[in-house]
Amino acid sequence: EAVAAIEAFFAAAETPRPLAGRRVLITSGPTHEPIDPVRYIANRSSGRQGHAIAAAAARAGAEVVLVSGPVTIPDPAGVAVVRVETAREMLAAVEAALPVDVAVMAAAVADWRVATAADAKIKKDGSGAVPGLALTENPDILRTVGHHVARPRLVIGFAAETNDVIANGTAKLARKGADVIVANDVSPAGGVMGGTRNTVHILSAAGVEDWPTMDKDAVAERLVALIAARLGDLG
Amino acid sequence: EAVAAIEAFFAAAETPRPLAGRRVLITSGPTHEPIDPVRYIANRSSGRQGHAIAAAAARAGAEVVLVSGPVTIPDPAGVAVVRVETAREMLAAVEAALPVDVAVMAAAVADWRVATAADAKIKKDGSGAVPGLALTENPDILRTVGHHVARPRLVIGFAAETNDVIANGTAKLARKGADVIVANDVSPAGGVMGGTRNTVHILSAAGVEDWPTMDKDAVAERLVALIAARLGDLG
Repeated sequence: EAVAAIEAFFAAAETPRPLAGRRVLITSGPTHEPIDPVRYIANRSSGRQGHAIAAAAARAGAEVVLVSGPVTIPDPAGVAVVRVETAREMLAAVEAALPVDVAVMAAAVADWRVATAADAKIKKDGSGAVPGLALTENPDILRTVGHHVARPRLVIGFAAETNDVIANGTAKLARKGADVIVANDVSPAGGVMGGTRNTVHILSAAGVEDWPTMDKDAVAERLVALIAARLGDLG
Repeated sequence: EAVAAIEAFFAAAETPRPLAGRRVLITSGPTHEPIDPVRYIANRSSGRQGHAIAAAAARAGAEVVLVSGPVTIPDPAGVAVVRVETAREMLAAVEAALPVDVAVMAAAVADWRVATAADAKIKKDGSGAVPGLALTENPDILRTVGHHVARPRLVIGFAAETNDVIANGTAKLARKGADVIVANDVSPAGGVMGGTRNTVHILSAAGVEDWPTMDKDAVAERLVALIAARLGDLG
């Protein structure tokens, strides 16, 4: 029995668990915003990067809550998953998960939704007239968390940009109340949306850190190491 | 060698192949209509019903071309699959597949697309102003095929409705130039969109035939039997 305890001790010691005892909230995937019962507005996020971060945080010993929009990839191991569809549902799930030590907002949340989704399928009336889609702004989940009364000690946002990646990402740092913005170029030519690799830039008060193109799993591992280091600095 | 030939003859005879020598075109899945490089308008079609019909037609001996929008289900066995994203791409792939003996248009094609998709990600400008989404009508693929110079001898369309299922479906018969409309109720409460079961009504010049609720595979088998019977009647 003493031998087993010693073996268990060393087995646990072999796996570094720098986030043990930490509670980490991660959002991932797209949101779907209904137009009518059969149609919706979506975006090309696969959830691969957010899910990879959730898996890496769990391996690092964190208690992980993953709030995920509609994705077709499997749930990461060792993670509590809350499934949502719309931005408003995602915000509600995020606020319900607080307080946490760290929030990583990797979901591609729709900026706008249709102001009034139709109860019945919108049909062509034969006149060639097209329906107007009046949009309204969705809640800004990252900004809400970044300025929340229960603000996590570390708030990390993502900025998926197709142009002026660094400038657009840097502008989000203060506006969203984030400690770190992970900015990436999601232009179609790059294949990031839906793909398995990612080229990110880490923006913070310390400036810009360019990471090389890596598998999304490797980006996740490195981001978890960054989180552990920052939490260590915060004490 | 003679024995092997006889065995092969009886093995083939065991499987009824009522569509042997027939060329069948099937569309399936949703279409995605881009708003900008990262956002799009979509619908809840899973492609399960269309793919099941393609598989059943192939088992019945047909040469099958399946034109599919973005789906996450596997390709059916023994079928040539052409992948498309938008309604315009689907129309082009459908016209390229003609002539065929039978067209089964099971895809949930977007009625409208965004008039001018943006080249760069549309961003919030901080003013709270929302972008207008000007829509324009997509080509009507079923109607195009139903009135085509290379019109298939048998044209079968689908009508996914959330209200007045029979009336809306029947109105489509003549307007689309279809021989048969398979109408179903896709109200969210029914769970048809994305689900595995379907309750369909077969509308034709002969009137309305209500089929019981069945697995989508069973609907597909019965529809293939209907196709074989109608082709037989046509001679």
